[in-house]
Amino acid sequence: MVERLVVIGADAAGMSAASQARRRRKVDELEIVAFERGHFTSYSACGIPYWVGDVVDGPDALVARDPKTFREDYAIDVRMRHEVVGIDLARREVTARDLDNGGRESTVGFDRLVYAAGAVPVKPDWPGVDTAGVFGVQTLDDGAAVREWVDREKPARAVVVGAGYIGVEMAEALVRRGVEVTVVERAGQPMSTVDPDMGELVRQAMDGLGITIRTDENVRALSTKDGRVVAVETDRATHPADIVVLGLGVRPNTALAKEAGLTLGVTGGLRTDRRMRVVDADGVWAAGDCVETVHLLTGQAVHIPLGTHANKQGRVAGINIGGGYATFPGVIGTAVTKVCKLEVARTGLRESDAERAGFSYVTATVESTNRAGYYPRAEFMTVKLIAERGSGRLLGGQIVGRAEAAKRIDALAVALWNGMTVDEMLSLDLGYAPPYAPVWDPILIAARKTAEKLER
Amino acid sequence: MVERLVVIGADAAGMSAASQARRRRKVDELEIVAFERGHFTSYSACGIPYWVGDVVDGPDALVARDPKTFREDYAIDVRMRHEVVGIDLARREVTARDLDNGGRESTVGFDRLVYAAGAVPVKPDWPGVDTAGVFGVQTLDDGAAVREWVDREKPARAVVVGAGYIGVEMAEALVRRGVEVTVVERAGQPMSTVDPDMGELVRQAMDGLGITIRTDENVRALSTKDGRVVAVETDRATHPADIVVLGLGVRPNTALAKEAGLTLGVTGGLRTDRRMRVVDADGVWAAGDCVETVHLLTGQAVHIPLGTHANKQGRVAGINIGGGYATFPGVIGTAVTKVCKLEVARTGLRESDAERAGFSYVTATVESTNRAGYYPRAEFMTVKLIAERGSGRLLGGQIVGRAEAAKRIDALAVALWNGMTVDEMLSLDLGYAPPYAPVWDPILIAARKTAEKLER
Repeated sequence: MVERLVVIGADAAGMSAASQARRRRKVDELEIVAFERGHFTSYSACGIPYWVGDVVDGPDALVARDPKTFREDYAIDVRMRHEVVGIDLARREVTARDLDNGGRESTVGFDRLVYAAGAVPVKPDWPGVDTAGVFGVQTLDDGAAVREWVDREKPARAVVVGAGYIGVEMAEALVRRGVEVTVVERAGQPMSTVDPDMGELVRQAMDGLGITIRTDENVRALSTKDGRVVAVETDRATHPADIVVLGLGVRPNTALAKEAGLTLGVTGGLRTDRRMRVVDADGVWAAGDCVETVHLLTGQAVHIPLGTHANKQGRVAGINIGGGYATFPGVIGTAVTKVCKLEVARTGLRESDAERAGFSYVTATVESTNRAGYYPRAEFMTVKLIAERGSGRLLGGQIVGRAEAAKRIDALAVALWNGMTVDEMLSLDLGYAPPYAPVWDPILIAARKTAEKLER
Repeated sequence: MVERLVVIGADAAGMSAASQARRRRKVDELEIVAFERGHFTSYSACGIPYWVGDVVDGPDALVARDPKTFREDYAIDVRMRHEVVGIDLARREVTARDLDNGGRESTVGFDRLVYAAGAVPVKPDWPGVDTAGVFGVQTLDDGAAVREWVDREKPARAVVVGAGYIGVEMAEALVRRGVEVTVVERAGQPMSTVDPDMGELVRQAMDGLGITIRTDENVRALSTKDGRVVAVETDRATHPADIVVLGLGVRPNTALAKEAGLTLGVTGGLRTDRRMRVVDADGVWAAGDCVETVHLLTGQAVHIPLGTHANKQGRVAGINIGGGYATFPGVIGTAVTKVCKLEVARTGLRESDAERAGFSYVTATVESTNRAGYYPRAEFMTVKLIAERGSGRLLGGQIVGRAEAAKRIDALAVALWNGMTVDEMLSLDLGYAPPYAPVWDPILIAARKTAEKLER
């Protein structure tokens, strides 16, 4: 008997699951139907700021595989612009609405279901937030909308609300398009994903780009005129704006899942086991920005919407659906980005995370270079490590630098993943040659200094 | 009572040991005398090819700390141009010859001894090998000699014998100085430190630089005229040469140690324990290019002369001499270099190493990019992994690529160091953003393909 797999959301997570399931179970065993409410499949949402900033082409270049490829090469019945509006777990069927055909509804039965509906941008209920000229940035369709506004309206001034990854990246993109940008951030620093001392380095880089960064400032309302946004009102100032971009993060898009009776966790994301099966739901899988996962250092549930996790989780779900065995054990919070030429990377816990989790710790921060100091174009980088007092175990690392800095976080991430102590790290056999590192790599210099502090 | 530490060889290993010992034991406890037969202390030998190639300044820029700094800031009595010619373990004294003062000899007693005499270039007994115009490249003094010859003699044609790290780097350096270069290599590929398939990529890069590379060719003699080298005779051809550089590797400089009765291992290097104490010799330590160490994957003794190991081993010796506790557990064979813009990196075992050690293994080779494919200046890289059949444990990794490729070896090295399987690696939380990686980092793509091969 042919089984049917229904996939809700045809982006990274959903289509990784579908492709992997197809790899292991051919058409005569498994029929696959995927519903996507947007215009694009399997795209790089992370590429949107670079598209808006004219650094990369779009939207097609950002699509890893298009619907035609999935249909022809994977025999997956991808239904674009179809929004799933209901899941009936008892009857094993979903109801989808065809957005391009007057919302005509259809019902499709399933044996197995993958819920991969992604995330939705956080949108506060500020007065004026629904006015023209105010954008969230989550989907390629959102990216297209921002681009169209910039091309057509030629805004002179932008306000970006939120100085996290998307906020900072969009600020840089808009500066590249010749817009004067102010970033308003509630916290005391930009890029709260790193510690305040490292965030200060990001602030300096944003200053250098001509971005005005206003921290410790809360938005109260958006002012409008003739149905368009004209300013952002905060508790401290009025910032004129011809375009407003909301970079306030996203939340799991799980309203439909909740309605169907699937189990949500404390973060609002779907709870799954290590094989990406939704807990207490037979034959239902979930992956991507709509699920919560485990932080391996704290054991706590976290919602970390990143394309890299979505791809891995989707792959794991698909392998398991296909009859194989694969697991996604959790995350350690690795992330990298750049602000102009400044590279910013982190893994593991920040100081505040470590405190909250009850760790006693020491930190050490060092400055070194990406290459031997005497080698041409050696550039500075700052490396900060956090290690547990007593055990000496690495708890977190942060790197801010000018070149070849961000991806050094990977060696730290693998060390941390394996529970290494900073003392053990000092023996690590890392690559050394003058064009690539000082004889002590910056991360080893940081480990040395951390180990010395632990000794005291 | 004040103890005296004598250090033989004031380069990376010796002076790391001396500095660490000084950190922990002040002048009133420990007197430190260091003998150096050359003109420089603590220099980057790895920088020599870049100095010869006019990429970096030298020689002073290559010196991390000069004798004056050691004397004034570390209270270390550095005696330059003093060659130690005898060690008497029973009487606890060394005899040194002052090379700049007619070889006047002096004797200094010691309580503890660090042997850090480094390595000497392999110099075959080919006829003509001692002629003017033939150079090894090991010390800064060697580097200065090559530079002087190039500046003064303006050689039109060079032959580099040996296509390992130093050979390839010197070939590139000489091309940069306008010399026509032929590299003669006994093996069937350049850069035998990587597998033949990866070595082929290096060959292509060398071709692209205009370097003539002759593999499977054995040197028989060097032809001379008027006391100068004029050609290299091999078993297959005569290669005219106005300068010949020997890049045949180095061997531990342990003649003096052997004469004194210290224990040498199978590689000819000094045998030490994990704390860098020479085995069976009370109060004698050794570090750097003169020692052998353990390959952690095979358990075999290996001689891997690299500045990064020398620094670590010296530090470990010094901490232990100073009353602390530190160990150097061994190496996994990580190394990186570049050939023009081609980055070459390796860690762990090659296929031939794995075979020799008795591993059954699978390999997978993938091509991917350093950045998201759609991001500007995305460059290709090739990643090859070797994993043990059955256990799935990573045994080795090799990377050849155009940009931001070589240092990706570090994440592999840390994974390998921790005994990860390629399957476990698939869950690794590595840094992802379009400017830094595709959503699946090249090393994860390689791990996926290797895991798939293991499944079969």
